[in-house]
Amino acid sequence: MLRLGIIGCGGIAMLHTDNILGGKCPEISVTAVADPRESRREWAKAKYPEAQVFTEGRELIASKPCDAVLIATPHYLHPPLAVEAFEHGLHVMSEKPAGVYTLQVREMIAAADRHPELTFGLMYNQRTNWIYRKAKELLDNGELGTMKRMNWIITDWYRTQCYYDAGSWRATWDGEGGGVLLNQCPHQLDLLQWICGLPVRVRAFTHEGKWHHIEVEDDVTAYLEFENGATGVFIASTGDAPGVNRLEILGTRGRILIENEQILFERNSADEREWCFTDKRPFGTPETEEIRLVSDGGNGQHAEVLNAFAGHILRGEPLIADGREGIRGLTLSNAMHLSGWTNETVDIPFDEQRFLSLLNERRARSVKKQETDIAMDTAGSFGRKS
Amino acid sequence: MLRLGIIGCGGIAMLHTDNILGGKCPEISVTAVADPRESRREWAKAKYPEAQVFTEGRELIASKPCDAVLIATPHYLHPPLAVEAFEHGLHVMSEKPAGVYTLQVREMIAAADRHPELTFGLMYNQRTNWIYRKAKELLDNGELGTMKRMNWIITDWYRTQCYYDAGSWRATWDGEGGGVLLNQCPHQLDLLQWICGLPVRVRAFTHEGKWHHIEVEDDVTAYLEFENGATGVFIASTGDAPGVNRLEILGTRGRILIENEQILFERNSADEREWCFTDKRPFGTPETEEIRLVSDGGNGQHAEVLNAFAGHILRGEPLIADGREGIRGLTLSNAMHLSGWTNETVDIPFDEQRFLSLLNERRARSVKKQETDIAMDTAGSFGRKS
Repeated sequence: MLRLGIIGCGGIAMLHTDNILGGKCPEISVTAVADPRESRREWAKAKYPEAQVFTEGRELIASKPCDAVLIATPHYLHPPLAVEAFEHGLHVMSEKPAGVYTLQVREMIAAADRHPELTFGLMYNQRTNWIYRKAKELLDNGELGTMKRMNWIITDWYRTQCYYDAGSWRATWDGEGGGVLLNQCPHQLDLLQWICGLPVRVRAFTHEGKWHHIEVEDDVTAYLEFENGATGVFIASTGDAPGVNRLEILGTRGRILIENEQILFERNSADEREWCFTDKRPFGTPETEEIRLVSDGGNGQHAEVLNAFAGHILRGEPLIADGREGIRGLTLSNAMHLSGWTNETVDIPFDEQRFLSLLNERRARSVKKQETDIAMDTAGSFGRKS
Repeated sequence: MLRLGIIGCGGIAMLHTDNILGGKCPEISVTAVADPRESRREWAKAKYPEAQVFTEGRELIASKPCDAVLIATPHYLHPPLAVEAFEHGLHVMSEKPAGVYTLQVREMIAAADRHPELTFGLMYNQRTNWIYRKAKELLDNGELGTMKRMNWIITDWYRTQCYYDAGSWRATWDGEGGGVLLNQCPHQLDLLQWICGLPVRVRAFTHEGKWHHIEVEDDVTAYLEFENGATGVFIASTGDAPGVNRLEILGTRGRILIENEQILFERNSADEREWCFTDKRPFGTPETEEIRLVSDGGNGQHAEVLNAFAGHILRGEPLIADGREGIRGLTLSNAMHLSGWTNETVDIPFDEQRFLSLLNERRARSVKKQETDIAMDTAGSFGRKS
């Protein structure tokens, strides 16, 4: 049995709690919780009457009433709390994103590396979705050939102004550190690099407060270039209604299209790169076979990530996502911000110190919103996609 | 009856000939043809035994065996031949694009304006397609609300190397003046500006000879900004197999999706801009009604454009596309080239002299390919889309 402490009792902790108390995580027992807000501590006491309750995450870590912590706080706090936990000999599962800026996440990784005996996981629950696993498999095993293009339109993150008004830290540079890239899209940015690899170059167009009264970006279009010359487009917004979640990846041997929780594989009769130079008809195109791929049944989401985390700690079983991989999606996110802020094309790796300086300029100008105290029920917001 | 002279007997003239001789253009009689190539003149004589046959378009224009000319030559020649025709009192229908660079097309428009008694049309046959007419109608009449985003992935232009090898002028800076933007995409660039309006800003990423051994671009990704702040993406390629033709336009009142010759309208229950600031649920989204729009039966393509041209000359009926509008799609095309060449964001209107200088640099370096003499049957290449 893994004794878990939950730091931060907002919306995502409610979802984990439903899974844990609902019997989906049989090897996990919540023995501690922490939250600075009275109302959330009350909620936690009601849910976990046996658990120790703390105001601060650091207190929870210091008193060690658990073997591992689940960090579910605002993003800026993930790295310092993770570092603290590692130093106290606790395993760490962090919510996404790993942090707000890569320099901060490098400290988190360094701490994890100083403690190889401890497990470090990231809540990349979308990696459990069979659709994305299948896409990765088709690229990894060569069935799709070499990647030529990818387009991800991920705009089904619609949020009303009321969403942004409900959290004082949310959608501010100082409180959250970003908008749609940092709050809604970490999963897609992770999946993008996991499936397609990390781009080597990014040109992004970020629009701040375009659809809402907020400081941070709620609309992003990014152009990507990969090492092999493949290109990509990534479009995200919290202002589109109706929104879209459509990922297509073109390879030399075919194309996959992921939309509406389905994955279609159009398989070419030949590798296009050979075909182009051997077919003698000007308009000749390889024949394609349409294959509607079917699920292997696996899509365990948050519970699966937590169970793998427990399995890793208890029996050395594989994680869904090693925490060290969290920096890759954040690298892409930071590069997009940097490109949008500077109106420049940004090579990856980018100047991480420059990013931090520009972020800090924004933090210095950031305006804290009026405090509210609503624990938002996020279940409807990412039943499948988050 | 309109007496028509056809200048240039390549693939597109073959298609028009099938329409005219097939009875689809009852008011048009071909009385003259011109082509510098012997084999094509022989073809023309066999098709039009009564017509006068010329080697040069200028000879045809000077001897005036017709009331109007259809200019179906390589793109660079459209404007000078049109100017010549207007000066000889002939009506002009030009194939797309109007020309290769906007300064050249301005001369063509000036000549047309000096002869208001003459008709000037452009072969924008895709404007007859009910799908695009419907999209324009939904934006123009306000049913879609204000445009917020548009994405056009138009990559189903697959061409083998053999296509490029078959024409000596094709895909060279000096012979054709561009690649996928100038040869394959003029219809989409016209439709884009016709339906959505002309963007005010473009950042394009053009890749020359990426998929083929050619001088010009065969892969383009462009980011667009419109006057009202709406953004867009335009992706085109002749190297994608399988390709895609997918246009979506998001407005404040819904979204239209055009794909597979169908148009789907998702209509919002409320205007999103009002909804965002009045709905009190963080994740509340306007309800949408899915409407599968049905054809009004009209999609007359090239024949419809020619018939409207004849109707305009004979009875003052409306054109499908006034030739003067040809500069708008070309403006977008030139702006994309300019952005790609300079790695800069290009405002529209752009510096047309600078564009011409950069084009001329490329023309000076351009290498003419070995002469071949194949009149390519293009029927399969744009049965519906071109």
